[in-house]
Amino acid sequence: MTATTDISKAGAARTIISVDAMGGDEGPATVVAGISRAAQKNSNIGFILHGPKAELDNLVAKRKNLTGICEVRDAKDVVLMEDKPAQVMRHGKSTSMWSALESVRNGEATVCVSCGNTGALMGLSVMRLRKLDGVYRPAIAVLWPSRNPQGFNVMLDGGADIRADAKDLMQYALMGISYARNGFGLARPRVGLLNVGTEEHKGRAELKEAYDLISANAKKADFEFVGFVEGRDLPGDRCDVIVTDGFTGNVALKTGEGIANLIGDLLRQAFRYTIWSRMASLLAFTSMRRLKERIDPRRVNGGVFLGLNGTVVKSHGAADAMGVSAAVGLAFQLGQSGFSEKLAARVASAAMLSDVEENEGDSE
Amino acid sequence: MTATTDISKAGAARTIISVDAMGGDEGPATVVAGISRAAQKNSNIGFILHGPKAELDNLVAKRKNLTGICEVRDAKDVVLMEDKPAQVMRHGKSTSMWSALESVRNGEATVCVSCGNTGALMGLSVMRLRKLDGVYRPAIAVLWPSRNPQGFNVMLDGGADIRADAKDLMQYALMGISYARNGFGLARPRVGLLNVGTEEHKGRAELKEAYDLISANAKKADFEFVGFVEGRDLPGDRCDVIVTDGFTGNVALKTGEGIANLIGDLLRQAFRYTIWSRMASLLAFTSMRRLKERIDPRRVNGGVFLGLNGTVVKSHGAADAMGVSAAVGLAFQLGQSGFSEKLAARVASAAMLSDVEENEGDSE
Repeated sequence: MTATTDISKAGAARTIISVDAMGGDEGPATVVAGISRAAQKNSNIGFILHGPKAELDNLVAKRKNLTGICEVRDAKDVVLMEDKPAQVMRHGKSTSMWSALESVRNGEATVCVSCGNTGALMGLSVMRLRKLDGVYRPAIAVLWPSRNPQGFNVMLDGGADIRADAKDLMQYALMGISYARNGFGLARPRVGLLNVGTEEHKGRAELKEAYDLISANAKKADFEFVGFVEGRDLPGDRCDVIVTDGFTGNVALKTGEGIANLIGDLLRQAFRYTIWSRMASLLAFTSMRRLKERIDPRRVNGGVFLGLNGTVVKSHGAADAMGVSAAVGLAFQLGQSGFSEKLAARVASAAMLSDVEENEGDSE
Repeated sequence: MTATTDISKAGAARTIISVDAMGGDEGPATVVAGISRAAQKNSNIGFILHGPKAELDNLVAKRKNLTGICEVRDAKDVVLMEDKPAQVMRHGKSTSMWSALESVRNGEATVCVSCGNTGALMGLSVMRLRKLDGVYRPAIAVLWPSRNPQGFNVMLDGGADIRADAKDLMQYALMGISYARNGFGLARPRVGLLNVGTEEHKGRAELKEAYDLISANAKKADFEFVGFVEGRDLPGDRCDVIVTDGFTGNVALKTGEGIANLIGDLLRQAFRYTIWSRMASLLAFTSMRRLKERIDPRRVNGGVFLGLNGTVVKSHGAADAMGVSAAVGLAFQLGQSGFSEKLAARVASAAMLSDVEENEGDSE
C-alpha cells in the first residue's frame, strides 16, 4: 500500500514524500529549490515539508510548480550537526526532523528525506518508526557508481552500526535485493559478500558463517550469490548488491570519495597546466561534464535506512539543490514501487523460513 | 649496518637487493628489464637474482648496465599464484622465492623484492626471517597517492593479518613512523588511526584502547598523533601514516584501486566521445600523462613487509618493467637508509618502555 494523501485536491493520487527542510548545511532555500527540481522531473509527487512555517511558506510561494502539491508542517526547532543523537532522542520532539519522521509513522507519507545529522536521524528513525519484525540491525544502503548496466551498485551497511554478525549480514543481503529490484529494476540481483579475497577459506569467522547463510537463502529468495567479493568490486560489475558490516562499509565509502575527489582536483590542475591543456579543457567540456555527472557524489546522493517500518533517505549534509533533488527522486522511486512493503514481506518470509529450519533442526 | 657484498669487484660498496625473478605474471624478462631500469636510476645498487640460472644469465647478458652488479643464484622451482602458502612453507625450499629470502636471512642482501604470491611470500618471510623481538603481528605497509607534499601516505596493515588488537595497532604506528622517516624523509611524521568518525567516542573498543596506547607513545617516540581519521584521509593531508587492521586496510586499498581504475576508464571513454574531445586528448596529452603518473598504481607499487628481521618488498603480480623498477627503487632507498635496523631499534625501545610501564603499574 502506498500512502496517497490527496494534498493537491486536483484529484490524482500522489506519492507523498516527507521532507525535513532544516539541518542541511545550505539551509531551507536549497531544500525547497531541490524539491521544486524533483517535482519538475516526477509527476504524481507530493510533499509535506517540515520546519518554521512562515519561512517555508515564503520559500514555497516562490516556486510556482509547488503550488498545491506541497504542504508545510510547522516545527520550530532544528537538529544541529553537532547535536548528540541521545539528546535529540530525548528532547527533539519539536524539531523538523522528528516531525518529518512523524508523517511516515502515521502513514501520511511513504518516505522521509533529511539532509540533517546522520546519527540523530538514525536514532530517531529507529525510535519512532521501529525496526521491522525480525530485523535486529537496520542498515544504511549507499550507492556506488559502477561498471554495471544500471550505472550503480548498492552497498550495505554504509555505517548504521559498526557491528554485524552472520545473521545481520544475511538480512542485509535480503534488504539489498529488495533495493536492487525496486531501485534498479533488476529481476534477479547478484549479491556479493565483501572480504579480503575471493577464496572461500579467507577472512573472518563470521564471514564464513554469513557465506553459508546467504548461500542457503539464495535458492529460496531467488537471487544469485556470487560469493566473496573484494573492495575493487564495489564499483565493478561482478555483482549488484555488496554486503558488509557498517565499519568496513563506512571506511570503504569515504575512501572511495577521497580518491574520487583527489583525482578530480588533479584533473582540474592538469587542465590548467599549459596553454594546450587549457584549450583541451574547452574542447572536452561536454565529455568531461558527462564524466563528472557519472561519478558525481551528488547524483549518488542519498543513503537509505533499511529495516524499519518505513523508508528514510539521508541526503548529504552539504547537498545543493541538485543533491536534494536526487535524494527526493530516489525517495519517490522507492515510494512509488511500494518498496517498504515489499522489503517487509521479504524479511518476514525469510524469518519464517529460518524459524522453520530451526524447528526442523530440533530433536523433538 | 647495511649489507655490502662486493659483487662488482670494482670496489665501491653497494646496497644489495635480492630479487625473486620468478612468480610474476610477466615472467623473468620483465623483472630483468625492471632491475636494469632501476640500476640506471640508482648508482651503488647491486643485485642477487634468483631463478633458473641458464635463463637468467641469458637475460642479464643482454642488459649491459647489469654487468658486474648482478649475480644469478640458481633456483629451479617457482611459487605459482595459486599455490597454498602452507604448501610452499613445507615444500618450497627449491623455489626462487625461498632462495631470494635466504640472501636477506644470511646478510648478503638488505632487502628482498618479489612479484610472487603474496600469501606465500608473507608466510615464507615470517618463517625464514622471523619476527622482530617484541613484534606479534608483522604488517604490510602500502603507499597511497596523497595531497601531502611528499605525494604519498603510508598505510599499514594492508593485509598481512585480518586481525589486530590495540597493541598491534600501536606497533604498526611505530613501524609506520620508521617508514615515513626513511621512505619520505619526514622528521616528525603525523599518525592517524583509521575509524568511522573523528570523534573520540566513536568506533570499536579496541580502537579506543589503541587510541590511548598510541597517544601515550607519541611523546616518547617523537611523532604527532592526530587521533582518529576517516577513509577520506587515506589520500588526504591530515597525516602521513594511517594505522588500521589488515582486513579494513585491504578493503580500503582495493576500493581505492577500483575507483581509480573506473575513473581512468571513464576518462578514456570521455576523450574518445566526440571529435572535439579527441582533439582535446591530443592537446592535453602531456598534462594527462603527468596526472596518470601521479596516481599510477605502478608508481605506488610495492607493499613492504614490516616487523621482520629484514625488509621484504612485495611488488604487484602484474607489475611491468616500470612497476618492478619502482619496487626495486623503494627497496634500494630503504636498504640504503638502514631502515631495517632503525625499525628494529624503534620497536625494541618501545617494547622496553612498555615493559617499564607495566612494572611501574605493578602493585609490588
